[in-house]
Amino acid sequence: MNDKYFMDFAIDLASKVAGQTSPNPVVGAVVVKNGEIVGFGAHLRAGEHHAEVNAIQMAGLEKTEGSTVYVTLEPCSHYGKTPPCSDLLIRSKVKKAVIASVDPNPLVAGKGIEKLRSAGIDVETGICQEEANLLNEVFFHFIKTKTPFVTLKTAASLDGKTATSSGESKWITGKDARLDVHQYRHKHDAILVGIGTVFADNPSLTTRLPNGGKNPIRIVLDTQLQIPIDCKLLTDQQALTWIITGCNPPANKTKMVQGLKGVKVLPLATEKVDIEKVLHLLGELGITSLFVEGGATVNESFLKAHAINKVITYIAPKLIGGKNAPTIIGGDGYAAMSEIMELEVREFSRVGDDLKIVSVPKK
Amino acid sequence: MNDKYFMDFAIDLASKVAGQTSPNPVVGAVVVKNGEIVGFGAHLRAGEHHAEVNAIQMAGLEKTEGSTVYVTLEPCSHYGKTPPCSDLLIRSKVKKAVIASVDPNPLVAGKGIEKLRSAGIDVETGICQEEANLLNEVFFHFIKTKTPFVTLKTAASLDGKTATSSGESKWITGKDARLDVHQYRHKHDAILVGIGTVFADNPSLTTRLPNGGKNPIRIVLDTQLQIPIDCKLLTDQQALTWIITGCNPPANKTKMVQGLKGVKVLPLATEKVDIEKVLHLLGELGITSLFVEGGATVNESFLKAHAINKVITYIAPKLIGGKNAPTIIGGDGYAAMSEIMELEVREFSRVGDDLKIVSVPKK
Repeated sequence: MNDKYFMDFAIDLASKVAGQTSPNPVVGAVVVKNGEIVGFGAHLRAGEHHAEVNAIQMAGLEKTEGSTVYVTLEPCSHYGKTPPCSDLLIRSKVKKAVIASVDPNPLVAGKGIEKLRSAGIDVETGICQEEANLLNEVFFHFIKTKTPFVTLKTAASLDGKTATSSGESKWITGKDARLDVHQYRHKHDAILVGIGTVFADNPSLTTRLPNGGKNPIRIVLDTQLQIPIDCKLLTDQQALTWIITGCNPPANKTKMVQGLKGVKVLPLATEKVDIEKVLHLLGELGITSLFVEGGATVNESFLKAHAINKVITYIAPKLIGGKNAPTIIGGDGYAAMSEIMELEVREFSRVGDDLKIVSVPKK
Repeated sequence: MNDKYFMDFAIDLASKVAGQTSPNPVVGAVVVKNGEIVGFGAHLRAGEHHAEVNAIQMAGLEKTEGSTVYVTLEPCSHYGKTPPCSDLLIRSKVKKAVIASVDPNPLVAGKGIEKLRSAGIDVETGICQEEANLLNEVFFHFIKTKTPFVTLKTAASLDGKTATSSGESKWITGKDARLDVHQYRHKHDAILVGIGTVFADNPSLTTRLPNGGKNPIRIVLDTQLQIPIDCKLLTDQQALTWIITGCNPPANKTKMVQGLKGVKVLPLATEKVDIEKVLHLLGELGITSLFVEGGATVNESFLKAHAINKVITYIAPKLIGGKNAPTIIGGDGYAAMSEIMELEVREFSRVGDDLKIVSVPKK
């Protein structure tokens, strides 16, 4: 057993609870004494115990004394909803701390490590750092930019179509791919569509997994507040629905929509719905991760705003054809190859009969 | 060592020479005596030795007597350009023959096996049959249909675009993907584009691999014989060029084009260029495999004619956007989801920074 072995376990623990700790990061911790795992834990939910606390509780104080604690993220040094973990490690007489990611949160940023070192605890950093950073890419992005991490989800045929020329789109991808999408909904704070999608599909945008799942807040971009008053998003009360409009939504309709349970109208200061402003608004409202399932027009607005942090593409092995059949990204797009968005592929796999590509902006 | 071990070797030998035996199938053979490989070979080129002949020559007559011969395709029983291989096996006193594919050629079809058996040779079939059948999918298709096996090659961005809205298309995919395409050109009898591609790109459509390679015959669909007289396909003399036109190409231009070295004009009997007729014509002219690198319009004609046997899709992780940016398959396409072409993914892999998907019609 080496450091990587124990840190891999801590990362596994953290990744299992990804999506349920927002707005907090996911963290896993493992306590090792004489080469044996004596305790482990993860942070399960905002406001509850941090990973180190759970792991040390399992180990007990006697075994924790003189142990090495592996933790995926730098222990906190400040009072948040719970007391600082660095203090707990010091008080528990931990001998060594092995840390994967340094916390980018300006309230923590190296201070936890400093505190441990000045208390005589041996600190090692950098083990599995890249993997641990990926685990909290959403949290890190949010802490740095105060805007949500945006994942664009798309599904198309092998020839790039999202529907036939007549608009038929059910179903391009198979049920395994559709189920996979619901796992992402579960892991996101909010899901976003344009008003066009509401008109076309009257979607519920809820998470429907075999064992349930958390519903994201449903966000509709709807400049003129044209949303049908009887659509599922306004009436099903399955999750909160926020309608983002331009600065002058019709007053009567606003009043009517605002009156519905779980529904909010959020007018921007500008006439048009600008993506950058939408993201800042959502950041202020505590949305750390946004899953965009927009149509071609909404997707293009995010592309042009340089607001895409990850792209998940499902490709169904089908040929639809048609010069006028809709594609993933519409609008004007980019005219010059020098302007287009370059990505790099992070994952490529089969999901049922379909393929899934996960890509991120090229460094 | 078991039968699969030796047949895998025979298949490896055959697959190495794929593309150079047309119009013959690719075949590999291995001679095994007392569990030891004593000879092996492949059919290298039409008109030259069959695989069994090369393998038995390597083994020598003494070692071949009493041996087991593994061969990927049923030994021929008829006189073609060379004498029948089944006779050679009998004459060489082979004890046993293990055969992967049964030959679909009506001139052979089980007759080779019958001949071996009646001469007292033990025959086993079916080992690695699926793999061996794939190896000769082109040959089998051609024998059965008398038309070439059609592979559609496409390259697009992650959002399904083959160019920007202004028409810029250099380069969507990276150099590794472009090199990969040249391996397919090498392996095909002919390559086909529409006149639109000639106007847009003035391509040479030759095989440019680090170690050279075989140029496919270049075929242009050009109903009105509008091809520019100074384009590379007509002037570079790097490979044969055939222009398929409607029934009434302008007489003067036909005469002029026909006069060029290595160039032929092939008018169809119909006014329009019909894909089914094109394929029958090409079949009659001995083209067993056709690599379609058409633009959106040509690709759609092949789709609508149900004439696609394989699709090779390169996807570049880039987002271009644009409602009017061209896609892989244009034209009208299919309006109803019930009509679209369903495929299944046979291979998917990374090629440099890009992705490659190989799919075939769903069974």
